[in-house]
Amino acid sequence: MATTAAVQPDQNLVKKDAHPFERAQLEGLMTKRFFYTQAFEIYGGVAGLYDYGPSGAALQANIISHWRNHFIIEEDMLELDTTIMTLSDVLKTSGHVDKFTDWMVKDTKNGDIYRADHMVESVLEARLKGDEEARQKEAGAAPAAAAGAAAADDKKSKKKAKAVAVKLDDEVVREYKTILAQIDDYNGEQLAELIKKYDIRAPATGNEVTAPTEFNLMFESNIGPTGQVKGYLRPETAQGHFVNFERLLDFNNGRVPFASAQIGKSFRNEISPRAGLLRVREFTMAEIEHYVDPENKSHERFSDVATLTVPFLPAKVQKSGSTEVQKLTIGEAVQSGMVDNETLGYFIGRIYLFLESIGINTSRLRFRQHMDNEMAHYASDCWDAEIHTSYGWIECVGCADRSAYDLTMHSQRTKRDLMVQEPLKEPKVYQKYVPTINKKVLGPLFKKNAKLIEDTINAMDQDQLKSMQAELEGGKATLKAGGESFEVTKEHVEIEYKTIKESVRNFVPNVIEPSFGLGRIFYALLEHSFWAREEDKERGVLSLPALVAPFKVLIVPISSNEQLSPLARQLSNKLRALGIASRIDDSSATIGRRYARNDELGTPFACTIDFASVSKGTVTLRERDTTTQRIGKVDEVVDVLRQLCEGRLDWKGACQILPAYTGTQDVDA
Amino acid sequence: MATTAAVQPDQNLVKKDAHPFERAQLEGLMTKRFFYTQAFEIYGGVAGLYDYGPSGAALQANIISHWRNHFIIEEDMLELDTTIMTLSDVLKTSGHVDKFTDWMVKDTKNGDIYRADHMVESVLEARLKGDEEARQKEAGAAPAAAAGAAAADDKKSKKKAKAVAVKLDDEVVREYKTILAQIDDYNGEQLAELIKKYDIRAPATGNEVTAPTEFNLMFESNIGPTGQVKGYLRPETAQGHFVNFERLLDFNNGRVPFASAQIGKSFRNEISPRAGLLRVREFTMAEIEHYVDPENKSHERFSDVATLTVPFLPAKVQKSGSTEVQKLTIGEAVQSGMVDNETLGYFIGRIYLFLESIGINTSRLRFRQHMDNEMAHYASDCWDAEIHTSYGWIECVGCADRSAYDLTMHSQRTKRDLMVQEPLKEPKVYQKYVPTINKKVLGPLFKKNAKLIEDTINAMDQDQLKSMQAELEGGKATLKAGGESFEVTKEHVEIEYKTIKESVRNFVPNVIEPSFGLGRIFYALLEHSFWAREEDKERGVLSLPALVAPFKVLIVPISSNEQLSPLARQLSNKLRALGIASRIDDSSATIGRRYARNDELGTPFACTIDFASVSKGTVTLRERDTTTQRIGKVDEVVDVLRQLCEGRLDWKGACQILPAYTGTQDVDA
Repeated sequence: MATTAAVQPDQNLVKKDAHPFERAQLEGLMTKRFFYTQAFEIYGGVAGLYDYGPSGAALQANIISHWRNHFIIEEDMLELDTTIMTLSDVLKTSGHVDKFTDWMVKDTKNGDIYRADHMVESVLEARLKGDEEARQKEAGAAPAAAAGAAAADDKKSKKKAKAVAVKLDDEVVREYKTILAQIDDYNGEQLAELIKKYDIRAPATGNEVTAPTEFNLMFESNIGPTGQVKGYLRPETAQGHFVNFERLLDFNNGRVPFASAQIGKSFRNEISPRAGLLRVREFTMAEIEHYVDPENKSHERFSDVATLTVPFLPAKVQKSGSTEVQKLTIGEAVQSGMVDNETLGYFIGRIYLFLESIGINTSRLRFRQHMDNEMAHYASDCWDAEIHTSYGWIECVGCADRSAYDLTMHSQRTKRDLMVQEPLKEPKVYQKYVPTINKKVLGPLFKKNAKLIEDTINAMDQDQLKSMQAELEGGKATLKAGGESFEVTKEHVEIEYKTIKESVRNFVPNVIEPSFGLGRIFYALLEHSFWAREEDKERGVLSLPALVAPFKVLIVPISSNEQLSPLARQLSNKLRALGIASRIDDSSATIGRRYARNDELGTPFACTIDFASVSKGTVTLRERDTTTQRIGKVDEVVDVLRQLCEGRLDWKGACQILPAYTGTQDVDA
Repeated sequence: MATTAAVQPDQNLVKKDAHPFERAQLEGLMTKRFFYTQAFEIYGGVAGLYDYGPSGAALQANIISHWRNHFIIEEDMLELDTTIMTLSDVLKTSGHVDKFTDWMVKDTKNGDIYRADHMVESVLEARLKGDEEARQKEAGAAPAAAAGAAAADDKKSKKKAKAVAVKLDDEVVREYKTILAQIDDYNGEQLAELIKKYDIRAPATGNEVTAPTEFNLMFESNIGPTGQVKGYLRPETAQGHFVNFERLLDFNNGRVPFASAQIGKSFRNEISPRAGLLRVREFTMAEIEHYVDPENKSHERFSDVATLTVPFLPAKVQKSGSTEVQKLTIGEAVQSGMVDNETLGYFIGRIYLFLESIGINTSRLRFRQHMDNEMAHYASDCWDAEIHTSYGWIECVGCADRSAYDLTMHSQRTKRDLMVQEPLKEPKVYQKYVPTINKKVLGPLFKKNAKLIEDTINAMDQDQLKSMQAELEGGKATLKAGGESFEVTKEHVEIEYKTIKESVRNFVPNVIEPSFGLGRIFYALLEHSFWAREEDKERGVLSLPALVAPFKVLIVPISSNEQLSPLARQLSNKLRALGIASRIDDSSATIGRRYARNDELGTPFACTIDFASVSKGTVTLRERDTTTQRIGKVDEVVDVLRQLCEGRLDWKGACQILPAYTGTQDVDA
C-alpha cells in the first residue's frame, strides 16, 4: 500500500464515504462538547497545556482501562506509580540533563523564540508552497485552494511562515526537499549553516535570528527549602522503573523475563509548541519496561502474534528514499531478522492489536524503524507505531530496545548490583588465567603509577595474560600503560591458570520498552472516528467503539412530562448496575437535536422513553452510525445493550433480536 | 465513645484480638512486599517522595476505581483531567501565592532547616516526656517503656528532639500542654515569641535558631524558554475545576446542582517532611467540587444517608476543651443546624460509607469540624474525616463549603461571568429607585472627584436613594464621599422609581468540596488492616477486603511438577476472564511460606493445585484470616470466588457451598 512522506496529509487514506475531513470542524466540536480545551483559557491560555473535560476524561479513562487490561492484567506485569518530581542526579545518570535538548533561536529584534528546526522547516515549506502556486499561475491554472485545516492552523499560529507565490529554481526545490526529508537529523551547527545559507528569517517579522543555542526540555524546580536539592519533572516514566529494579526483581522471585508498567504524567518544556494535542508540555504516558536475558530474547507467547500481518517500514527502505510499507506477518519479520527478536516482535503485535481494538483505522497505521542517526541515546533498535492524521504520520508508540544502557548507568553511578543471578543447572567449569597483584610491593615501587599498572593488568584479555605469564616465567614482563613502559616481575604480579567453577550466571538484563503517548493516540483516534453526514455537514459524528466511548447510552425522555423522568432514572440505574455508563438528556431541545448532540459525543446507543414506555414498558434503541431504531421491552433492550457493550454482539445481531421501530418514524427527523 | 487528643495514639482504639501493633513491623512489610518505598532509594532517597510498587499500586488503583464508582459514576459527576503545571496568575487569584506558606527557622550555625511549629512541638513534647520520666523515677517506678513505634520513628528522624529526664514545674507543664493544643494556630511572630520565651533550640545541635520566615509550599518552575511565564505545580486540583466552570456549566445544560470530580497528583514542597506517607511532597488527591444554589443547599438524595449514624466532633465541643464525639444520625445533625446544610450532610454520609467499604475501621473514624481560626482562607465551614492511626488522628478527607469564594475571585480577575442563569418560572416584577448619572455634566464640574461621586451614588441602598431623590426634588442634594461634601442637582443625577421585570436570576454558585488525600487513606487502611497471628508474631497479615486487595487469589502449585503448571495457568485465565486479579506463586518456597507471603500481600484467598487437581479436577480454597480450607471442583471454586470477590457471599456462606478440606491437613503447617 502506498504511503506518503511525513507531515503531508494523504487524502487517499481518509474514509471515502464521509464528508471531507476538516480539522477546524473537529476542533470546534472538541471544545463545544468539552473533550478538551486549552488550559487556563479564561486567563488567555498557555501553549502546550490542555485540560480534558468530562467527555475527554471519560474517553481517556476508558483507553487507559483497556490498556491496563490488554497489557498489565493480561501479562501479569508489575504496575508502578513512581514520583513525577525526580532527583536531578537520576536524570544526570540517564543522560537527560546533558542530552534532552532542542535547538532554539531568537528574533534579534523582538526576542521571539523559535525552535530552530521547526523554523527552518516552516520557512522552506512555505517557499515550496509559494513556488508551487507560482508555477500553477504560470501554467494558467487557478491556485490550489488551501485546505481548510491548514488555513485554520495558520490563523492560530502567527509564528508560522506564510507562502508567497515566488518561483524557485528547480535545483533549489530539490535542495529544499532534501533538507526537509532530513530535518530531524541536523545539529545546532548544521542548523546555523542552513539559516545562513538560505537566509532564513523569523517568520513573524522577517528579522534575522541568533545562532541556535541548546535548551533543556525538562522543567526544573527545587526540592525543599534549602535550594540545594535540584529536581526535574520527569520527561518519561522509565527512570522510575529502573531505580526500583532491585525491588521489582525481588518481587518477581529474582527471575526474568518480567515487565513493569506505569501510567502517568510526564513533562517536556517544549520551546514553542503547536499542533494541538500532538506536541504538549504535559502528557499522559503508559510505559512498559520488559526485562529480558540478553542471550535469550524469545517470548513465551510469541505464537499468539506470529501470524498477524502488520505494515512495516524498515530503516533500509527509508534509506533508499522510499516510504513504501511492507506487509509481513510478525513471524516472517522476526525470522528474516528485520525485527531483531521475538520479544520486540511480540510487542509490535500487541501494540497493533491494542490500537485496532480502541478504534484506530489500521490502514492508517505503520511501524517505522528508526534510522541509526535518529535513535535516542539509550536505544539499540526502535520501531515507532505511527498513525496517520491530518498533520501527517505521527509517532504514537515507541517500541525500543534500550539494551542494558539504563541499568548499567545507574549501577555504575550508585555502585549497586542491578543484576540478575541465574542459578545454572550444571555449574560451568572452565580454566582461565587469573592475575593476582601484590599491592604491597607494587605500591611503594611504582608510586603514582601503581594504580595505572593495576588497572592495565586487570583489563587484559586471556591472550594478553597468557603471553604475560610466559614473559614473567622468563624473569620479567614489560607493560605499556599511559604511554610509558614498566617492567614487572613475579614479585609484583602472579598469573595462574585456574579452574573456575561457576554455579550462578550474573547478567544485566536488556530492556524492551513499549512507550505510549496516550494523548497522541487519543487525538488520532478522534480524527479517525470523526466524520459528518452528507445530509448534515455542520454536525459531526464520532464513531467511537463502545469499548472506549465516553458514554455508552444516551437516555432521552421524549418530553418533559413528569411520568417519564422516573423511568429514565430506573433505566439509568439498571445500566449502572451492569457497569454501563449512560447519560440522561432531559433538556428542552428537540429530540433530533439531542440525538445529534449525542452523535457528537460519540455515544453509540440511545434509548428513548416515550408514552409507550409508560403504557407498554417498551423503549426504542437507536444506533449512532446508521441512525436506525429498534424497539423492545426495557429488560430485553438492557440485555441487548449489555451484549453490545461487551462486544459479544454487533448491531446486525441486535437487529435480529429486536424488531424495527415503526411507531413514529419522524422522531429522528 | 471516648477519644483522645490529636497526635497521641490511643491503644483502646486498636484491635484487641491481635498482637500489639508495631509500626516498624508494618513499615518493614511495606518495603519487603513492595507496597511502597522511598523514591530514589538507590540514590540515598528524598524525604517526602515515595514510589508505589506492584502491591501498593494495585491497592491504590483499586481504591481509586471504587472511588470512581462510588462517587463519579453513581452520581453522574463530570470528570476532569486538568494540568498539574499551573499558570502563576491563577494561583495568585486563588490566594495560594500569598497565603500557602509555612514558617521555617534555620539553625544559626549549621544551617539545618526546621518547620517552626513542628520544632516547637517536638521540643515541648520531648520536655514533657522527660518530665514524666523524672516523676516516675521520683516515685520509684520503672520508666515507661517507649512504644516500639515511637522508638523506630526516632531512629529515622535525627532532627526530632530527644527526651531527657528533667522534672518541670507543674505550672510549666500546664503551659506546655496549652501551647501544644493550639500549635496549629500560631503565626510567625507568635512562634518567635515562644522560641524566645522557652529557649527552644535546634533539636539536632542545641544551637539557636533564626526568627521564623515564611516559605511558600508550592514548587515553582518556568513555562517555556523565555523565563517570563511562571508556573507552579498545583497544590490542589480544585483550581483546575474552577477555571473550567463555564464549560462545565454549559456541558450540564446550564443548570445546577452538579459536581465535577478529578483524581490526580498534587504537590506541596514541605519544609521538612516526616511521618511517612502522611506528609509528602507529591500525592494523589481525589476532589469533588459540587456547585449549588446558595439559596438552596438541599440534596435530592439526602434521604439515602439521613438515618446513618456518624461520630461528630463539632467546633463548640472542641472549644469547651473536650474531644468527646457525638454519635448522631446525619438527619439529626442537619436538622439541629450543627451541620449547615443537606449537601454538606449528604457528602459526610457518602464519605463515611466509602471509607467503611474499603475497610477503614469506623470505630477509628470521626468527623471533626474546623474551628474558626483554623479554616482555610477560602472556606466558610469545614468538616474533616479524621482517621485514627499510630500517629494520632489524621485528616484524610476535608469536606469544606468554599462558598462562592473561588468563582468570585476568578470572575473579578478575568472579567468573565462565572454565573448561573436561572430562568424564573414567573418573572419577578418589583419597583426600585434607579439613579442615572449625567457624566457629561458631572465630569467637567467635579473633575478628579467625579468618579468618586459616581461610585458613591452607585453604592447607595434603596433608602439612601429614596432620601436623595427627595432632596433633589427640593433643588439639591448633599453627598458625602471621601471625607468631603459635594452638592449635586438633578442636572448631575436623576433618580427614578422604576418598575423592574426580571425573568432570569443570576447567581454565583456555592461550592461544597469533598477533598480526599488518597495516600493518607491508603496508609490508614494499611494500619487498620495489619495484624500478626499470636502463633507467628514475626509475620504480618493484611486483612484487606477483597474489594481493594491488590490480588484477590493466590494460585499455588503444590510442587514444581510439570503436570501442575498448566493447571495453574488455566485457573489464572478463568479468573482473569471474570476480572479477578490473581497471582501464581510457583517459587520453590514451602507451601506454608508461600501462604504467609500471601497473607503479607493481603490476598484474601488461595487456591492450591495438587495431584488431586490432575486426577479429580479439584482445588482447595484457603481463606486468609481464618486460614481454613475448603475443597471443590475447579468451576465450583471459581464460581464461589466470583461471588466472594463481588461481595455477594461471605466466607461463612462459602463454607456452606464447599466442604471442608480434609486431605492433607498439614499442608498449611
